[in-house]
Amino acid sequence: MKLYEKLAAEIEGLVESGVLLAGERIPSVRQTSQHHKLSITTVLRAYVLLESKGVIESRPQSGYFVRRRTGQPVATELQTSRPTPVSAEVDVSALVLSTLRSIRVNDALPLGSPYPDPSLFALQRLNQYGNAVARRHPYWNVIDDLPPGNPELIRQIARRYLENGQSVDPNEIIVTVGATEAINLCLQAVAKPGDTIAVESPTFYAMLHAIERMGMRAVEVSTHPREGIDVAALAKIIDEQPIAACMVMPNFQNPMGFQMSDDRKRALVELLTRHDIPVIENGVYNELYYGDSHPSTLKAFDTRGLVLHCSSFSKTLTTAHRIGWALPGRYRDRVEKFKFLNTLTTPSIPQLAIAEYLKNDGYDHHLRKMRKAFAQQASIMSAAVTRFFPEGTKISHPLGGYVLWVELAPEVDSMTLYQLALEHRITVGPGYMFSVRKHGYRNFIRLNYSYPWSKDIEQAIVTIARLIPEASRGG
Amino acid sequence: MKLYEKLAAEIEGLVESGVLLAGERIPSVRQTSQHHKLSITTVLRAYVLLESKGVIESRPQSGYFVRRRTGQPVATELQTSRPTPVSAEVDVSALVLSTLRSIRVNDALPLGSPYPDPSLFALQRLNQYGNAVARRHPYWNVIDDLPPGNPELIRQIARRYLENGQSVDPNEIIVTVGATEAINLCLQAVAKPGDTIAVESPTFYAMLHAIERMGMRAVEVSTHPREGIDVAALAKIIDEQPIAACMVMPNFQNPMGFQMSDDRKRALVELLTRHDIPVIENGVYNELYYGDSHPSTLKAFDTRGLVLHCSSFSKTLTTAHRIGWALPGRYRDRVEKFKFLNTLTTPSIPQLAIAEYLKNDGYDHHLRKMRKAFAQQASIMSAAVTRFFPEGTKISHPLGGYVLWVELAPEVDSMTLYQLALEHRITVGPGYMFSVRKHGYRNFIRLNYSYPWSKDIEQAIVTIARLIPEASRGG
Repeated sequence: MKLYEKLAAEIEGLVESGVLLAGERIPSVRQTSQHHKLSITTVLRAYVLLESKGVIESRPQSGYFVRRRTGQPVATELQTSRPTPVSAEVDVSALVLSTLRSIRVNDALPLGSPYPDPSLFALQRLNQYGNAVARRHPYWNVIDDLPPGNPELIRQIARRYLENGQSVDPNEIIVTVGATEAINLCLQAVAKPGDTIAVESPTFYAMLHAIERMGMRAVEVSTHPREGIDVAALAKIIDEQPIAACMVMPNFQNPMGFQMSDDRKRALVELLTRHDIPVIENGVYNELYYGDSHPSTLKAFDTRGLVLHCSSFSKTLTTAHRIGWALPGRYRDRVEKFKFLNTLTTPSIPQLAIAEYLKNDGYDHHLRKMRKAFAQQASIMSAAVTRFFPEGTKISHPLGGYVLWVELAPEVDSMTLYQLALEHRITVGPGYMFSVRKHGYRNFIRLNYSYPWSKDIEQAIVTIARLIPEASRGG
Repeated sequence: MKLYEKLAAEIEGLVESGVLLAGERIPSVRQTSQHHKLSITTVLRAYVLLESKGVIESRPQSGYFVRRRTGQPVATELQTSRPTPVSAEVDVSALVLSTLRSIRVNDALPLGSPYPDPSLFALQRLNQYGNAVARRHPYWNVIDDLPPGNPELIRQIARRYLENGQSVDPNEIIVTVGATEAINLCLQAVAKPGDTIAVESPTFYAMLHAIERMGMRAVEVSTHPREGIDVAALAKIIDEQPIAACMVMPNFQNPMGFQMSDDRKRALVELLTRHDIPVIENGVYNELYYGDSHPSTLKAFDTRGLVLHCSSFSKTLTTAHRIGWALPGRYRDRVEKFKFLNTLTTPSIPQLAIAEYLKNDGYDHHLRKMRKAFAQQASIMSAAVTRFFPEGTKISHPLGGYVLWVELAPEVDSMTLYQLALEHRITVGPGYMFSVRKHGYRNFIRLNYSYPWSKDIEQAIVTIARLIPEASRGG
């Protein structure tokens, strides 16, 4: 038996024994090559063989997935969303805040949390740096941190982009209090109260918050669960109503986890450029890819300074420090002004602590560990939901990040399910949070899989599954 | 010679020898009683004697001051401002930011800085607390700091008000990124873009920034340099145009340093209550009083929840941590919502570090030292300006804080003076920053006296004095 045949047989065995489930992503060619110490060609041959045998299938831009086989539990694919293209006022923050709070109040299992497992973070290491910085600068002067932010942190952020294959101008970077502030300032720089903003459907509520904060309106655009926002649908909306800006999450979108292809990213930027419409790109999960390489950004396709790219360290390094940034293209000076007006400066020591960490510590090593853990946990969570949730449940196929988007039967009310689960000290993210339409994603939930898989989590999934019929009453 | 006569003679000697200058405030009865270990009655008798001899004079709510005597250099009193009551758009932030930056770029003597001397702060002590906190909570979860903020810090803030004689409801407190964010959120909670906000004249530009951020308009109200906003003038403006809110700094206003009397505070709150107009109170200098006791707040006179009180630790404990708060009265829930939308949470470790400091360390001792230093430096700076600046210069009589407001001859342009001084690596605060009217305070400058008096500072005052005629050309 040749090497590639041996590998193919091994993978087929994992599928037959149920270790790999239908619909699950298998490790990439490069990952398998590294783990098995085989050449890329050998692995590719094995995958082609498995594909020809109908064991796996390749999906463009996504990788290889286990094919559906008779008799096995199957996670059905989500469909493209088809929201009505009518703009609406946004008023979602009260629901989001109370959902987040319930995690704290009940000390509940945080499957509804938007934050990664804090035990993954190097908080102590960062605080050692913070302490060293404070010792070196006992009389820190806030004037040194006026917008755009601490120069050393800005240099490190620019270097990080370069390491990820993107050249950015450090002079464009504005440091902010988390990506939240970055997104807020960017939106305020490009649109005014009452304007309409085009968003994905479902939308990450952080985007909706920014719209709500400014008293703007949102219109949801049809979005494919694996390919992202429908550029043709957006074009139609632009033709029919004035759109002041667009807000998207092209990589590992919360909640669907898709990664837009380079072609689609380019097409989106070209469409918006033709209409001179700025686009705010939320890239907070970019570093948490499961594939072989860092995904491209919309900004990389921008020729006219219309992409306002936002990101942070809150999903990859520390939620406690609240350090984000914006690369606002041609709106840089306006964003800097609004930063100054909004919070004056970003706290100094957190900026310097992160700068020191980036300079001296193993950020790459840390990220590799996170990516590997999240990729594995994505498979396990998907498999568990597929196994335990009622037939007809549909799930996303995240290619990065740490959340799974789950569509339940139409009669299930996610808010009822959320409340039932809370009584069992389990939180889920109700679908209502992801839309401006009152019942937009009524029968969807978001599950966080950043925590290491445990008996407790598995039991929680079983419990949620058991509660689903109850949450359907009167639906 | 009786004890009080001896004390009176001593003070008279200080006046005659020029140690105490005309117009300068002398230590309060209580301070003198403490320093000289004399009874309050003895000191009072000495002061009455000096007053009867025409050496000092008492001013209501302000204390005792050295009287003008022939032949001595005299600092003339500022007059009540008389701005035209026409609202205007606000666009002052670019000037303020470039002024602040120039301090950094030129490493200039920061007489133009709005921040206190950072060497007064216990940054290392705070960072030790931060480090200890981080060690105790290695897996800090951001969910614990959702608005309204860290519970322990909130408890400490409420306790601090109690220690200062004011009972506040801890459930009303919202922790923010500095007072800047607190003021912004409060303004956003009570008014909308295009609305007109009544402000003091001159106005602290932090207030103007909040108005500019929201695209609102400002109308300046006549303000007395020692007594504060003219309540009758404000009443007239309210009768003539719709006023959505009022923003004031009743204690140690930046730049004039006045403290409104309790009667005037009460009258202001009553007027606004009659018209159901909310008032945002900026109290960041409240702890930096030179008198015997903590000043009262507008909030203490509020019966209807219309006072939105804002403050921070940035002027008293640390500029680096950027921790402020709001007590937004009946607008509490709206402010909390906007906090969540604006920056999600306030960084955790800085909140906890300050909470630990307040619990365990000598905040009162630290504040007493600051107050004493600032009160002394106020006298020295006033004396130096009086001595060296051209005749006709008028100065404020700050009763707290650390800035002096200086009116130069009408033909002096403060922007020209600012630029000339910058060539000598000295900054001053140009009067233009304190008004929405283009030439509102053209011939005024603000001087920071928080730094310990030194030959360098004295030389800088001499240099500025020398540049003043040059700054008058073409004026």
